[in-house]
Amino acid sequence: MTAQPFHGVLVPVLTPFTASGEPDAARFLSFCRWLLDQGANGLAIFGTTSEANSMSLGERMALLDHLVEGGIPAEKLMPGAGACAIPDAVAMARHAVDHGCGGVLLLPPFYYKPVADDGILAFVSAVIDQVRSAALRVYLYHIPPVAVVGYSLDLVGRLIEAYPQNVVGLKDSSGDWSNTAALLDRYPGFAVFPGSEVFLLEALRKGGAGCITATGNVNVPGIAKLYANWQGPQADALQGAATTVRKTMQAYPMVPALKRVVAHFHNDPAWAAVRPPMEPLDEVRSRALIADLAKIGFALGEPRQRAAAE
Amino acid sequence: MTAQPFHGVLVPVLTPFTASGEPDAARFLSFCRWLLDQGANGLAIFGTTSEANSMSLGERMALLDHLVEGGIPAEKLMPGAGACAIPDAVAMARHAVDHGCGGVLLLPPFYYKPVADDGILAFVSAVIDQVRSAALRVYLYHIPPVAVVGYSLDLVGRLIEAYPQNVVGLKDSSGDWSNTAALLDRYPGFAVFPGSEVFLLEALRKGGAGCITATGNVNVPGIAKLYANWQGPQADALQGAATTVRKTMQAYPMVPALKRVVAHFHNDPAWAAVRPPMEPLDEVRSRALIADLAKIGFALGEPRQRAAAE
Repeated sequence: MTAQPFHGVLVPVLTPFTASGEPDAARFLSFCRWLLDQGANGLAIFGTTSEANSMSLGERMALLDHLVEGGIPAEKLMPGAGACAIPDAVAMARHAVDHGCGGVLLLPPFYYKPVADDGILAFVSAVIDQVRSAALRVYLYHIPPVAVVGYSLDLVGRLIEAYPQNVVGLKDSSGDWSNTAALLDRYPGFAVFPGSEVFLLEALRKGGAGCITATGNVNVPGIAKLYANWQGPQADALQGAATTVRKTMQAYPMVPALKRVVAHFHNDPAWAAVRPPMEPLDEVRSRALIADLAKIGFALGEPRQRAAAE
Repeated sequence: MTAQPFHGVLVPVLTPFTASGEPDAARFLSFCRWLLDQGANGLAIFGTTSEANSMSLGERMALLDHLVEGGIPAEKLMPGAGACAIPDAVAMARHAVDHGCGGVLLLPPFYYKPVADDGILAFVSAVIDQVRSAALRVYLYHIPPVAVVGYSLDLVGRLIEAYPQNVVGLKDSSGDWSNTAALLDRYPGFAVFPGSEVFLLEALRKGGAGCITATGNVNVPGIAKLYANWQGPQADALQGAATTVRKTMQAYPMVPALKRVVAHFHNDPAWAAVRPPMEPLDEVRSRALIADLAKIGFALGEPRQRAAAE
């Protein structure tokens, strides 16, 4: 397996929409810069948290163009390239490779169910074969609670074996620590990222590469501090603090709630917009969420977030 | 609600692929002609059975162009226009309207889960509002076993109320007769098509519009005969015969099995190809399926299929 550059705290970046419902490229670029300034090690744009599947292929390609043209280092970017259709996944992955992106996050084809491992293997093989680039780094995106279709432990091994240069890692958003642990045990050297910082310390202790977490959109500093100090005496306390923020957020629908938090702390109400079928968090729940975060000292605990937004 | 033209036996048309994995426009056109010759009342191209979500938007648009240019009457076509992203659904629906298609079949956005009715309502509303055409006829596509996300009974009523000119029918592939019956009871005049001919007679007796069924790809004559004679003394026997074919097919993975049957009876092995993540039916199971069909007299019972293929 070739060396791969991603490690640490990656953020599946929220996508802002304009009042008329279009992707807001300027706000997106500004937010990506801010996340990197906050200490994010990489940006997993066009993930589930990004409402990527609510955007057309053309919209995603144009946003990626805008980020790279705006100076975001392409090697820090891990765009989602997953799709139900091979040609769509190929087009997005090739676009990412052409830009020099550090990797792509690849959902399995998620419409048909049930799908056998052989069928997913054939799909991923077709994508890699058609992109035909030694520069392609694929991170498998395992998120059965949403996609329903997932990458089984055995299938991951078959993909690594078939494409050792290309299939280099996995984001595990199963929410099932035993699956993450099994991946780390079975495939040493393979870059496994749990999909939540709740499992970050445990993952790092077993050789994990970091985490790719929605909550990174609002708490890079807290998670990055844990990542930087995971072998130190403060590790468990830092994990506890990061977990507290996550659990507070998880009491609300994650994407609309994150957007409300960004809108609040960046003093930019436009950020609250989502694209259907997502629904914005209503005013009552938004106030409750901000109050819950105040209770755990989130606002006070991360003053850099306020400063950076001004 | 405006009058709508679709009734009877609609076929969600299989999509042939070439040896290199591209949609085979010539075979598709020829097969669509044959289905209409067999007595199909309409062609619901780009449904689940069509592997539509394994094709890019551009591939689907090009196939539709080819059918219309090839002389298939557009008013007989009900292309699938569903997508996870509003702009994709709008583009496909507008393309269908521009061609004069009789309607479109609209999946709900199927990536994010769970999705509230309000979110699906906002999605469908955005699609209809953006297509902005009085000619748009939407048939809701309810298939929770595959899409997971579905149209609840209440949501159907809200959509009819919001868009009485546009939302004119529904394909119910829930496999749950009680849901189909409830739709027929609650929304008289709304064109309800069960997604299987197994429910055709029961549906017609309650005011249903017909059926849209995968098995139509191989058994239009049997199903059309039932549709034509549903009030006659032979109705139950015809339902029994159609159901026997369906049950035989259902013992196998439906799409690869249907393609094998088409390949066999049309004497055209290329038809067996599927696009990943679907897997072709292997030789052993294919032979078993053809033998099962022979046992129920399917080959002998539908000689027109053989003749038309020659």
